[in-house]
Amino acid sequence: MIRRAIGIDLGGTQVRAALVDNLGNVLRRAATRTDVQGGPKAVMAQFAGLVAEVAQGEDPGGLAGVGVCAPGPLDSTTGTFIHVPTLPGWEDFPLRDELARALGLRVVVEGDAIAACYGEWRFGAGRGLQHLLYITVSTGIGGGVISDGHLLHGRRGMTSHVGHFRMATDGPRCSCGGIGCFEAFAAGTALDRRARQAALDHPQSLLAGLALPTAGDVVEAARQGDSVALDLIGEEADYLGTGLTSLIHLYSPDKVIMGGGVSNGFDLMEARIGRVIRDTAMPSFRDVPVVRAGLGDNAGLVGAAALLLFDERGSP
Amino acid sequence: MIRRAIGIDLGGTQVRAALVDNLGNVLRRAATRTDVQGGPKAVMAQFAGLVAEVAQGEDPGGLAGVGVCAPGPLDSTTGTFIHVPTLPGWEDFPLRDELARALGLRVVVEGDAIAACYGEWRFGAGRGLQHLLYITVSTGIGGGVISDGHLLHGRRGMTSHVGHFRMATDGPRCSCGGIGCFEAFAAGTALDRRARQAALDHPQSLLAGLALPTAGDVVEAARQGDSVALDLIGEEADYLGTGLTSLIHLYSPDKVIMGGGVSNGFDLMEARIGRVIRDTAMPSFRDVPVVRAGLGDNAGLVGAAALLLFDERGSP
Repeated sequence: MIRRAIGIDLGGTQVRAALVDNLGNVLRRAATRTDVQGGPKAVMAQFAGLVAEVAQGEDPGGLAGVGVCAPGPLDSTTGTFIHVPTLPGWEDFPLRDELARALGLRVVVEGDAIAACYGEWRFGAGRGLQHLLYITVSTGIGGGVISDGHLLHGRRGMTSHVGHFRMATDGPRCSCGGIGCFEAFAAGTALDRRARQAALDHPQSLLAGLALPTAGDVVEAARQGDSVALDLIGEEADYLGTGLTSLIHLYSPDKVIMGGGVSNGFDLMEARIGRVIRDTAMPSFRDVPVVRAGLGDNAGLVGAAALLLFDERGSP
Repeated sequence: MIRRAIGIDLGGTQVRAALVDNLGNVLRRAATRTDVQGGPKAVMAQFAGLVAEVAQGEDPGGLAGVGVCAPGPLDSTTGTFIHVPTLPGWEDFPLRDELARALGLRVVVEGDAIAACYGEWRFGAGRGLQHLLYITVSTGIGGGVISDGHLLHGRRGMTSHVGHFRMATDGPRCSCGGIGCFEAFAAGTALDRRARQAALDHPQSLLAGLALPTAGDVVEAARQGDSVALDLIGEEADYLGTGLTSLIHLYSPDKVIMGGGVSNGFDLMEARIGRVIRDTAMPSFRDVPVVRAGLGDNAGLVGAAALLLFDERGSP
């Protein structure tokens, strides 16, 4: 009998759910706008509705359970939120236990980037590897690590906050409150900010015609050959290459997989990211490849379900 | 029957060997000056001599084998050196297999900081923890990580090069060839350099009376209340606190253990390192304690033996 599990990806904008089989196929999906105002109680009801929708007609005995991924930091060992800037009112909410009670199913909770790492490892661009670094570059920078064939969790499940190592003695203030974090230089938000400045400085650029150009606009303008946008992409690739070089030294992965919104421009940045790694990594780390995520937006969703399908957390 | 194993710590100055029991006790030890000029062949003979000395009278059936630790990068999955700046001529030398053949014993080879991490976890300041970061601060900065009850190895066994993440966009040139690495700011060599400059700038300091003051001299002068030395110690603690904050975000350990020569001044730096972490780490990481290594100079030696005693690498 093919085992199935449900993945839920809780974001500040959308809640998405999917029924996933043990080959990583998404069999059914549903989504709704996150009821941020309503807080945990309202969102718990949304979870129940989405689960009912994607699990319709499923034999409950064939369901391994529900994996929920969400922005962190969250304590995946207890399934409790610690603090989610985009979801006020969820502090200390015991999501895992409350949801398990409400659904009568096994539930695991995992940070979204760690779940995405697991998804890419089981079903995406990292299949079969022993050592893997996944990085998501969007509003912030998050990550997950497979080392020696194990998904890393760390104390309270908070490992691999790969956006928050200090890359400069001064520099932009980071969302975490720190200064000069990798995330503060290389996340989509940082590229947005540089795009807006470039639009002001270069009225001839395609970006100058936009009210508030974003990282996505930069990628699009670069594809049309806009030289200002191409420079911004080059600079972004340099930041990413520099940060990844450090992370490669720290985790020694077989491969780096990049996901998140900024990875839509991966093809434009790939060569330059690789060049930075070859030029600045220690010799024995220079040949570590960086590739684009294989599961795209579904990595977290599929990964969260896979945590149940492969019993990653062990039996409760 | 109590199982025993032999640990060997190969350094650029000394080769040390110890017979270690499965409680971490060093039962017998021997050391000699490393025959750097003689290269692998001469040092292999030194290994054989030291092993014969510490294993004298032991029942070979009660010996789990020999664990050798050495400066990296080395490929612990094949037991081969990659490049050791302090040991010319060892490039690509298949130490594990050659030594196993010569001794007729099982051999494992591990990076010295990773072996020390393992020793501290099994027998030192990290006993019983699930997640642990060990850092050694001496000529360079090395490290090892226990995550989720496993010693991390990574691709080619090269994980946890914790001295080599970029902490500044510019800054001192690092031994690895990079710029602004944590090691380049916070290793003993960097403190030596700052001490020499301070001695020139402050003729009233105790340091000014020394020909070439070292990190060790700074610690000693600070203990005597020398204000220049105390400032240097404070600055060193700030660099260490800043680097450790990043590493705590990256690995989420239960505890950080510091070894290496600079940790002789740990008591002088402890409060300030803790303050930097409390002031700059993300809130849920602020309470991670930093402690001094429990095994001192023996961590690598004992850890290398422990790799055999606990069969860390699995059967060959």
